[in-house]
Order: sequence, then C-alpha cells, then structure tokens
Amino acid sequence: MIRFFTSPENIRETSIELTSEDRLHLRSLRIRPSEEFIVCDGAGTDYVCKLKNGKNENKADFASTAVILRQEKTQSEPTTHCTLYIAYAKGDRLEYAVQKSVELGVTGIILFKSKRCIATFDNTNRKLERLQKIAHEAAKQSGRGIVPIVKNGGEYEEILNTAAIRDGFSILLYEDEKHLHIKQVLEAKPTFSQVAIISGPEGGFELDEIMQAREKGIHIASLGARILRSETAPVVALSVLMFHTDNL
Amino acid sequence: MIRFFTSPENIRETSIELTSEDRLHLRSLRIRPSEEFIVCDGAGTDYVCKLKNGKNENKADFASTAVILRQEKTQSEPTTHCTLYIAYAKGDRLEYAVQKSVELGVTGIILFKSKRCIATFDNTNRKLERLQKIAHEAAKQSGRGIVPIVKNGGEYEEILNTAAIRDGFSILLYEDEKHLHIKQVLEAKPTFSQVAIISGPEGGFELDEIMQAREKGIHIASLGARILRSETAPVVALSVLMFHTDNL
Repeated sequence: MIRFFTSPENIRETSIELTSEDRLHLRSLRIRPSEEFIVCDGAGTDYVCKLKNGKNENKADFASTAVILRQEKTQSEPTTHCTLYIAYAKGDRLEYAVQKSVELGVTGIILFKSKRCIATFDNTNRKLERLQKIAHEAAKQSGRGIVPIVKNGGEYEEILNTAAIRDGFSILLYEDEKHLHIKQVLEAKPTFSQVAIISGPEGGFELDEIMQAREKGIHIASLGARILRSETAPVVALSVLMFHTDNL
Repeated sequence: MIRFFTSPENIRETSIELTSEDRLHLRSLRIRPSEEFIVCDGAGTDYVCKLKNGKNENKADFASTAVILRQEKTQSEPTTHCTLYIAYAKGDRLEYAVQKSVELGVTGIILFKSKRCIATFDNTNRKLERLQKIAHEAAKQSGRGIVPIVKNGGEYEEILNTAAIRDGFSILLYEDEKHLHIKQVLEAKPTFSQVAIISGPEGGFELDEIMQAREKGIHIASLGARILRSETAPVVALSVLMFHTDNL
C-alpha cells in the first residue's frame, strides 16, 4: 500500500490535511478515490486513508484532504531499540550506512569523530540535512513507523558516555578483538530492550580508544575473521542484532 | 599484513614469482625487505613471504620474487558454503551486493532473470568482468582465502534447479511470506555445510514463481516486517546465516 509520513499538526479527528508535496506524490501515483493508502505520524501510528470524495469538487479539493478510515499501530517497528554510533566517513559510505540501518530498524543514528577518522565533518548542518533526507526516504520505503534522527555526537569520549549511560548495554565493533564474538556478547545478556552499537572509521580504533570504552563498561566484540569495510560493519551488526532479538 | 592473490603457476617450492602488478603494488606500499606479507593462492592457502634480499641486486630484481617463509591454511574462510543467487538489477545495486557478500564470506554468486526484473543483462561478459573485479578487490581487502566467482545463471527456472539439486538446502527470500521467518527455516535444519540463498529483483517475485520454488523443495523465508531493498536483502540474509553458523 502507498505509504508516507506527515507531521502531527496535519492530523485531525477524522481527516488528514495533505501537503502540496503529498498531493503531487499521490497524483504522480495516479491514485484512485477508492484506493486506500497509509499516512504515518512518525510516532508509530498508521492512519489508513482514502481521498476525500465529495460532490462537485475540483482537482485541488480532490486531493487536499484524506479521510481517516481507521488507525492502527505500525506493525514494522522492532521491539529492541538500537542506537547506532558511526564514525565520520566519506559521504557515500555514511549515506549507505544510514540508508541500510534505517531499513533494518535502527532507532537513532549518532555520528562521531575518533582518532583515525580521515573524513572531516564540516558543513555539519548541510551534511546532517542530507543524511536526514536519506533516513526519511529509507523509512518511507521500508515501512517504518518512525523516522530515525541522525545527529552529530562530536568527540569519541562524549559518545562513549552517552552510550554507556543512556543506552546501557553497548557493543563496540573491533576487528582486532580475537576472543569475544558478537554472538557471545549478545547471548551473555539475557534480555534487553535498548542497545547501542558503536562502529569505527576506515582505519579502525586505536588500542587506547578500546581501553577507554572498556573502562566505561562497553562490550568489545568481533564480527568474525573477515575484515568488513567501515560501512558494512554496522549493517552486519544490526542484521544479527535484529535476528537475535526476533525482529527479523 | 599486506595481502594479495596470485595464480598457482606463480608458486614455486620455496619462492613466488611476482607479477609486474604485484611489484607495483608492493612498491607503492613502500614495503621493506624485512617486512612479511601474504600471497594467497585463491584456493585457501596463505604463503607468508618476504622479498628476495640477495646481494648487489637492482630494483627490478629486488621485487621480482618473494621468498616463502611458511604456508598456512587461510583462517578467514567460513565453514558453511553459501551460493548467492541474485536477480539482475541496476549496475550499482549488483556491484554493492557482490562487494558486501564477498566480504561476508559468500562462496559463489550466480545472477538470474525473473519475471519482474527491470534491468537487462546484455553486454553480459563486460558486466561479469566488472563484477568479478569487484569480487576480487573485496576478497583481497576482507582477507578471503578464495575469490568467489560471479556467473550468469540465466533464467529463473534454471537456477531453481541448480539450487535445489546442487546446493540442496535452499532459501528464497520473499517479502510477502508472512509466517516463516529465516530464523525458523535455519533453526529447523539441524546441520548443513552448504546452502543457497535466492534473492529477487526490485519488484519482488510473482506468486507463481514462489509456487515453482516450493515445488522444488526450496524454503520460502521472510526477512521481517520491514521491506528491504533488493541489494540489502542478500547482505542481511548472509549476515544472519554467518551468525547462525558461528562464522561471524
């Protein structure tokens, strides 16, 4: 079914105000008055709608409001909330990681700077805007009930604190970790509804950065014997997390 | 450690003949004579080498052969062999799926054409050549012991037969499968060392194509409530497969 997000102020008791963008979207899809589509409030509620179909209406009216037929909780949101922390990387790598992790069900994405980051993150607002747009598109296309927010978390130490304190259960992906695999880390934790995944830059983490994370109680985990690219690792970690928590 | 592939004919008893490409590669990396590097035969054996370091040698000699210090089985190959069948897709989507699945440990990749394929696959040889190059690079970078081969499998029905007969245990990813999730399919199979994953085109599979697969004993599995893009699905499926079989 056709599906898009709207901001809460457009939602009335029995109808939804369609923005000009929504109208163009629906027109381009040649939607028929009889056809149902979903407008999601981005807060986990889907509104199943039809276009207002009154008498002597003109084209503009025709698509200006949608009648709410019923509302239901979005079925696609995972039961486990995962915040993904990704180190700055070249544009396309970040865009890729954002798009795929939104498809996979990430709750929020926080970017950070660690020692071996080659990529800078200037024009922060423009870059965040672009990444947020990608997150929005991915959320729409994959049928998410929310649009995950992409933020800039700044320095490595800051995000370590956020992960350790706010997310609680936190896993840092480290290619040189030889003993603990992500499976063991996940299986050692009986139940959790919130988790953080921390994924490093192309050059990886430095040893003292690993120590720093350990001191804060963050679990260091390997993703196996094959070296994954910086944009692949978070997608693989999210896949196995969703699999492990029965969200896949 | 620096690592690249060579073809078996370059491997002698105690030394390895370096191609001009290898020599340029090693020079560009400013490798020192004392430094060890790995030459892999692409058949699961790593040769730990050093550059030949004789007297009064000139630059050319210097890097023309590598002395084999020891050989060992490549540690990074997964114990489960997975053949990935991917439907034709636009160039970048295929390239992405090939690169990531090689990083994840796929054994071989076979492309096919199903009813809803929009992308064609003409200039087949040129395209296969390009995809093979991407597979080679990904294998080198991720530390694989083999370079997975990318082939064109032709029509959907043909690859269904190959998967059912040659691979045995086969899983087809279907977004409209509402009951059986990939976890259930994997857990229902006690042990396996060979598996096929079949991933469809952007438009998905048609119902009669699903029936066709079922008739051949291929398992139909869902990857969860969120709709994954055609290039994301195989990467997610491989991730959970490697996780499930303790290869991650």
